[in-house]
Amino acid sequence: MSTDAHARPEGPSNAGALAVPAPSHAERTRTLLASVATGTLCTLTREPAGYPYGSLTTFALVDGDPIFLISELAEHTRNLHADGRASLLVAESRPGDPLANGRVTLLGHCTPVAEAREAVRAAYLGRHPGAAGYADFKDFAFWRLSVSGVRYIGGYGRMSWVDVDAYRDAAPDPIAPDAAAILEHMNADHADALPVYCRAFAGVATVSGALMTSVDRLGFEMSVSTPEGTRTVRVPFPAPIASKNDARTALVALLREGRTKLAGG
Amino acid sequence: MSTDAHARPEGPSNAGALAVPAPSHAERTRTLLASVATGTLCTLTREPAGYPYGSLTTFALVDGDPIFLISELAEHTRNLHADGRASLLVAESRPGDPLANGRVTLLGHCTPVAEAREAVRAAYLGRHPGAAGYADFKDFAFWRLSVSGVRYIGGYGRMSWVDVDAYRDAAPDPIAPDAAAILEHMNADHADALPVYCRAFAGVATVSGALMTSVDRLGFEMSVSTPEGTRTVRVPFPAPIASKNDARTALVALLREGRTKLAGG
Repeated sequence: MSTDAHARPEGPSNAGALAVPAPSHAERTRTLLASVATGTLCTLTREPAGYPYGSLTTFALVDGDPIFLISELAEHTRNLHADGRASLLVAESRPGDPLANGRVTLLGHCTPVAEAREAVRAAYLGRHPGAAGYADFKDFAFWRLSVSGVRYIGGYGRMSWVDVDAYRDAAPDPIAPDAAAILEHMNADHADALPVYCRAFAGVATVSGALMTSVDRLGFEMSVSTPEGTRTVRVPFPAPIASKNDARTALVALLREGRTKLAGG
Repeated sequence: MSTDAHARPEGPSNAGALAVPAPSHAERTRTLLASVATGTLCTLTREPAGYPYGSLTTFALVDGDPIFLISELAEHTRNLHADGRASLLVAESRPGDPLANGRVTLLGHCTPVAEAREAVRAAYLGRHPGAAGYADFKDFAFWRLSVSGVRYIGGYGRMSWVDVDAYRDAAPDPIAPDAAAILEHMNADHADALPVYCRAFAGVATVSGALMTSVDRLGFEMSVSTPEGTRTVRVPFPAPIASKNDARTALVALLREGRTKLAGG
């Protein structure tokens, strides 16, 4: 599960430019897992034995390990009692082409939670308050997937096996909860700023249209129409940002700087 | 993979009444698969060997078997070359509690499509027109999951292993594409009809509120507030319906019949 031919260098880079700082796949994985709380649990069937069996499940993350609250009567639980090997697929559910969205597969062994049950219970119910009604039923138990492999796919051509230690150390992007609002605001009210960013900071001379498509603590990306076709352009922030206000400040400063630069100042 | 303690009788029934006709789990499975075209493909890892590995995939259905168009470079394809055992989880993505939604797991062997490739290609591209751009790339191929096991879960307490022959013979509910519009119309414009249905056809004497929650070719279901709490009530159509117009005709006729019945006529 190390490298493979399908893997690509992390993050996009602008043609002809040095690589632009972008969140690592470890960080993107943690960001995705912070925004989705439902996934597919994959276990091994008992009879006939050894088929991979997918089932829908909700989860919470504790120290990077998914926690499940599952019934002893359910197929996946009975499968796990026989063989603890498992994985969890978690996918973004944005509209449009599903294969262009991000998803992650966490592989490892799944075991009943024996230690720190109260902390695990609190974390799970914090994410799934509705489960309080059955969390203490006798036939329900918390299980933990101890992650030993992480496969990240950010869309077409943006994928890798992520180092597990890097995954455990990474944190979700602090801008992610506000990203959709920032994109909407920029595209609706500041469309005129986008060509300035492209020309001043990404060396794209002729821009016939641009749409901001993502923003994170290190920068933002645009889908840009040029005479050579549609390109993805990434512009870094001068320094990492940590809030929606930081984003506003950075985007205004970059616009001012870009205009000055383009005016030859 | 036959019966298990988690299984329940098919379909809801009204308390005290005989079972009300409802779509079988085989039919519900085909209906679900007709409405969703993305799922989780579960394969077996190569190294370390034998872990169940979940990945996002799009599919089309041909004679009940899922068809995938996958790259030779992708993890799941390399897994399948080593071991064809696989499953596909497909889940509804309605808002609200994800565990209350329907999902199905199809188990079987996955092999490259060798026969009738043109028909398979047409079926796949009919469902995923965007894939025409890479369907004929040298490193992409069609694969077929030959279904040998079907697990259906319709929500809490509504689940079973579905007979594979029954699954192959079943057809999607013809009303499903119009169901959302019918529910919206009935709840918005004919809320006064719902208590009549409950009292006349389900023996629910006192109704303080009702919401139509599903409709299919054999009948419809409501979530009903009663002095004893919230109940699910199913009312059958006099005969199976096949269109939105049929639904309108049947619902109007049932309302007239119900009012007459309640008036002691």
